[in-house]
Amino acid sequence: MSQNAELPSAANVQDAAAFLRGRVTRTPALRLAALEPMVGCELWVKCENLQHIGAFKARGALYAVGRLPPEQVRRGVVTYSSGNHAQAVALAARAFGTTARVAMPTDAPRVKVEAVRSLGAEIVFAGTTSRERQRAALALSAETGAVIIAPFDDPHIIAGQGTATLELCDYVAAATDGAGLDALLVPVGGGGLIAGACLVAAERGTRVVSVEPEGCDAMARSMESGQRVTVEPAATLADGLKPVEVGALNFAVAQRHLAAWLRVDDEAIGRTLVTLLLHAKLLVEPSGAAALAALFSKPLPFPAKRVGVILSGGNIGKDLLTDLLARFTPYEHAPLAPGAATV
Amino acid sequence: MSQNAELPSAANVQDAAAFLRGRVTRTPALRLAALEPMVGCELWVKCENLQHIGAFKARGALYAVGRLPPEQVRRGVVTYSSGNHAQAVALAARAFGTTARVAMPTDAPRVKVEAVRSLGAEIVFAGTTSRERQRAALALSAETGAVIIAPFDDPHIIAGQGTATLELCDYVAAATDGAGLDALLVPVGGGGLIAGACLVAAERGTRVVSVEPEGCDAMARSMESGQRVTVEPAATLADGLKPVEVGALNFAVAQRHLAAWLRVDDEAIGRTLVTLLLHAKLLVEPSGAAALAALFSKPLPFPAKRVGVILSGGNIGKDLLTDLLARFTPYEHAPLAPGAATV
Repeated sequence: MSQNAELPSAANVQDAAAFLRGRVTRTPALRLAALEPMVGCELWVKCENLQHIGAFKARGALYAVGRLPPEQVRRGVVTYSSGNHAQAVALAARAFGTTARVAMPTDAPRVKVEAVRSLGAEIVFAGTTSRERQRAALALSAETGAVIIAPFDDPHIIAGQGTATLELCDYVAAATDGAGLDALLVPVGGGGLIAGACLVAAERGTRVVSVEPEGCDAMARSMESGQRVTVEPAATLADGLKPVEVGALNFAVAQRHLAAWLRVDDEAIGRTLVTLLLHAKLLVEPSGAAALAALFSKPLPFPAKRVGVILSGGNIGKDLLTDLLARFTPYEHAPLAPGAATV
Repeated sequence: MSQNAELPSAANVQDAAAFLRGRVTRTPALRLAALEPMVGCELWVKCENLQHIGAFKARGALYAVGRLPPEQVRRGVVTYSSGNHAQAVALAARAFGTTARVAMPTDAPRVKVEAVRSLGAEIVFAGTTSRERQRAALALSAETGAVIIAPFDDPHIIAGQGTATLELCDYVAAATDGAGLDALLVPVGGGGLIAGACLVAAERGTRVVSVEPEGCDAMARSMESGQRVTVEPAATLADGLKPVEVGALNFAVAQRHLAAWLRVDDEAIGRTLVTLLLHAKLLVEPSGAAALAALFSKPLPFPAKRVGVILSGGNIGKDLLTDLLARFTPYEHAPLAPGAATV
């Protein structure tokens, strides 16, 4: 970690993309022209809610498990997660013919717990913080010799998650005669997605902006203090974005490349989720709405004409969705200017 | 109409596609591997819910208005519609710098009425059947000299709507080494979408299947009796699929190419809508769920390995969506087999 040479690179993301071809969905990149009058810029989204298991996490887990030596694969894998990474590791274990055991928080959404179970993984419930479930996973690994597939602080995970940004950047570049994105907004939990995004986007002159729920702002506070800071995560709708701290590797990459960091509240997350649903016809989970929520509720700290947003996942249950529809009003809809979106 | 030469052709759809490039969204075609265990075949959907104005209707209207001589464009356009075609004509009028007047049913969903208004069109309410609003449009046209943009019984409309099928067939062919779709399920109101689909799909050996709500089965009954039949449309969730009869041109094309016709009930439509939302993260309106509902609730009358479905639109209001979430249970979810979907 102290050597720059140890940090993953854009080339690692390219390697991951080659490995993952045919193993993950090349999810749609869409220009959401209908929402552009509300945000005042071109809006390009990457629909990782349409990825296998409903979230980008399938990318990193399939790459990390797929790169293990065969004898390690045979011993099975272990992980800890609030939900989507757990599903992703369960999926990856099944894809590579082995078993997965997963430490999940006792307050994980039922829809995520059921999805992990239905993918054939064994669940061990362990507290409500990322620390507690990490400890449980370490114990499982020590018991069985199974490798831990870390949720974010791992070079293969970072490279795998980076492929979502790679696909989005390639798509926008092709659609804009090479101009590409001026800014990219990425939700941050432990930092896997944003570290991968930084590796790809920074090389192309795209400024990467992290978005965290208020009070779950481990990345923002770490950036502000110049070193990793732990937080006591506040309550938030975005259950996927509340680790105690960002990963060491993830922070090291962010420190070199991150252009800005923003915080969003539940009101913005809920309204954005409902707006995306009713006006863009896309279902995202609260964590998946967070990055776009920043664009709806905050000024960007620099000018940007073409803005990308990663819609990181769509795993939300019927009850919570019904509740959010009742509680939140969509942002005001301005109808599409014809010809504005041509992709 | 009595001459075969007068029927639109696959070449007309290609012309429409060339005209519409850059004017409509090339919507995603997705393989929904997560739903495949429920339907027992490969499932490829065309996401016209992600089209401009939230429905495929933008295609036909932009092509029909765009092909008018300039002096006709200047006089404005008139149409009649239960909703999505009204929005589409309003959009097209604005795109080509003219005005639109639209006869809509008094029971049109509020979300559709507001969308038409916000696109700058003038609305005239006229009864609840397609006949009544057609009469109102004729009167408006006679008064002002404005051209009527018919919702379905028109060669340009059919050619324009056909471009959705063209894109889907091209996509699946490319993804399957040229094999393409065995069957394509298309929802039918007046028959614009299905006539266009027939022109494209029949040429490629893809068997086209129409889907209508029970009791709104003008196409099925016309196919069964060998001539156009009018119906008294029954109540249905699918407000976009209840014309009194299918168009003359549309029926003529269907008679030559349609492989089968199916009917679906509200239960299947509602459950399919909720399944698509929670398990595929896509919001469709009831009419947009109808074709897939047939695959969930009926056996196909012939074997098909790769089945395409057009998700025709996504314009549904918050209240109806909330109501459907409360009333309908999704079809049982089987998690994604890794590697099953690779597109």
